[in-house]
Amino acid sequence: MEFELLSHDPMSHARRGRIQTPHGSIDTPAFIPVGTQGTVKTLSPQDLEALGVQIFLANTYHLYLRPGHETIAQLGGLHAFTSWPHPILTDSGGYQVYSMAQIRKISEEGVYFQSHLDGSCHFLSPEKAMEIQEALGADIIMALDECTPYPVTHDYAKASMEMTTRWAARCRKAHHSNTQSLFGIAQGGTFLDLRKRSIEALLDLDFEGYALGGLSVGESKGQMNEVVGTCAELLPRERPRYLMGVGSPEDLLECVGFGMDLFDCVMPTRHARNGSLFTHFGRMSIKNVKYAKDQQPIDEECTCYTCQRFSRAYLRHLFLADEILVLRLNTLHNLHFYLDLMRRFREAIEAGCLSEFKKRTLSQLRSRGEEALQETAE
Amino acid sequence: MEFELLSHDPMSHARRGRIQTPHGSIDTPAFIPVGTQGTVKTLSPQDLEALGVQIFLANTYHLYLRPGHETIAQLGGLHAFTSWPHPILTDSGGYQVYSMAQIRKISEEGVYFQSHLDGSCHFLSPEKAMEIQEALGADIIMALDECTPYPVTHDYAKASMEMTTRWAARCRKAHHSNTQSLFGIAQGGTFLDLRKRSIEALLDLDFEGYALGGLSVGESKGQMNEVVGTCAELLPRERPRYLMGVGSPEDLLECVGFGMDLFDCVMPTRHARNGSLFTHFGRMSIKNVKYAKDQQPIDEECTCYTCQRFSRAYLRHLFLADEILVLRLNTLHNLHFYLDLMRRFREAIEAGCLSEFKKRTLSQLRSRGEEALQETAE
Repeated sequence: MEFELLSHDPMSHARRGRIQTPHGSIDTPAFIPVGTQGTVKTLSPQDLEALGVQIFLANTYHLYLRPGHETIAQLGGLHAFTSWPHPILTDSGGYQVYSMAQIRKISEEGVYFQSHLDGSCHFLSPEKAMEIQEALGADIIMALDECTPYPVTHDYAKASMEMTTRWAARCRKAHHSNTQSLFGIAQGGTFLDLRKRSIEALLDLDFEGYALGGLSVGESKGQMNEVVGTCAELLPRERPRYLMGVGSPEDLLECVGFGMDLFDCVMPTRHARNGSLFTHFGRMSIKNVKYAKDQQPIDEECTCYTCQRFSRAYLRHLFLADEILVLRLNTLHNLHFYLDLMRRFREAIEAGCLSEFKKRTLSQLRSRGEEALQETAE
Repeated sequence: MEFELLSHDPMSHARRGRIQTPHGSIDTPAFIPVGTQGTVKTLSPQDLEALGVQIFLANTYHLYLRPGHETIAQLGGLHAFTSWPHPILTDSGGYQVYSMAQIRKISEEGVYFQSHLDGSCHFLSPEKAMEIQEALGADIIMALDECTPYPVTHDYAKASMEMTTRWAARCRKAHHSNTQSLFGIAQGGTFLDLRKRSIEALLDLDFEGYALGGLSVGESKGQMNEVVGTCAELLPRERPRYLMGVGSPEDLLECVGFGMDLFDCVMPTRHARNGSLFTHFGRMSIKNVKYAKDQQPIDEECTCYTCQRFSRAYLRHLFLADEILVLRLNTLHNLHFYLDLMRRFREAIEAGCLSEFKKRTLSQLRSRGEEALQETAE
């Protein structure tokens, strides 16, 4: 993997870069859609290509349980299996073990857990996480970490971060592939001293990229921004920086400014399936009765397929009638919104005007005021 | 509407034609995919266009109940509402009233029924069926009929057919649009004398096309073929002939040979969503464990997007993992199979070799023998 820095925003820490992987390049800052089970829900590879998606994230936990990493390896790896010849990132499986499976025992060695599918027992260790991800064959793979919950005491966060650090060292040692790039994950909760120590330890291990984990888990926006802003300054300039599981358009605006390069989040795709749509003037719920006879597109400024061809009235009809098509049309729209936002970030960084872009975009997102906020809260 | 006959098969009654409507032409024999609620389930208009679909069928009953024909009329009619600028056919609503709603009372005047959605009470008469379909604005619309069930006595079938005939006359009288073509529907169950009288009465009313209803409702294949073969000979050569709700690839092969021009059926789309796939060697169930590591496409002779890009193993994974994408990929494949079959019918008629084509295709469809039949029965 190679990472090239193309330009910097003069008024912030934002950077415009390009990651080269064996399966193609990724322009950063980049948003990575989530394709949990080897597909970004509702979309085909053709749809993703048409949207300009350069990389998607697949979840190791899900693919390990079904259809199994060995099966995928026998079928030629994740790229061949999913018919996606472009870059892929896999997570370590840790986050889903904590959030979906039933944990039987966490120890220094690793985690014993029961599958959420059939209750079968499994063991995930740093070495196993590397073995599974090597079989899957993604371009970017992640070290196994413990995602520190919120709120926790300093003592808990410290012990957890230290175990994550030791696991990172074991992942580094167990990682053999030279076509896959391994990223380390900094933890430490909202404690800046722990985050700093976490990053220092990871830097000693020399990863090809660095991620911030355990954010957007319940802490305030102010706390998150403080952690991201502090951590980004500690990370090496010449390696990609990945903020995991974040976030809203507003979060992306903020964290691009701190110099983060990669983001993944289920927000655009999950909201789409719930009928919640992103627009340049805030979020809207397509279920709302006021759209029953509305001939306008979701967002008249949007150039996506959905907005070019369908009215709010038709989308609302499909949604209320449980027609599967609308889940795809909504997903196309929301992902287009996110990808377009990232494209504009990159252009603004290149033009050296990110701060004006940020100000204008935030004010537009809030332009419908109370009404938009109310729908956003739905 | 204009109907042009382009060529005839010398060894059967099959004909190759073209229907011109205000929204474009339909090459016949044609298969009409079912888009019940104003969308062929899982597919976008772009998908349908890419498949070569020239017309789809929308169900009047569903659209009348939700979002309502008046709403659709206010939004510019069904073509604008669904963003489908090509031909559309609507049924009369009768069939769904009998099969989905709770009937309160059938009388000479019409049918009182309760919505399957919310139990609200409604009344459908021949005049109302015309009013609703005029508001929807499809290119081809259907007279209200009573779909005679099977088995019934000759007396029941006779009375039912005679009411259908009187309703057809009322539809003819209530039909005012000169951009929509009204088709009459022959009933009479499996009684050839009644079918003959039904058709004679319809011919007196001079419809722009003629449909055969009440078939594929439980009678044997032999009975259905006898009715279709007999009726087709009684229908005028210069008007389109539409066999409603039929059928399997084998049924289409048979009934094209009788000189039928149009067919609609939920089989390819519904089977797709159940994981049952049509291939040139018979049907297969993608759920079968034997496909778990199968790198082949569904059908190596197929040129659809799904077969060009995905393995049976991946499709099976998506199906077992409840991923929505597979419903679309399966639907694309099954509809491609049906449309391709119709394309080959047309070519065979033009080349005057339909009977050889039919023999070869039937033998291929049965080539996997017991295995295919077993899966077909799933």
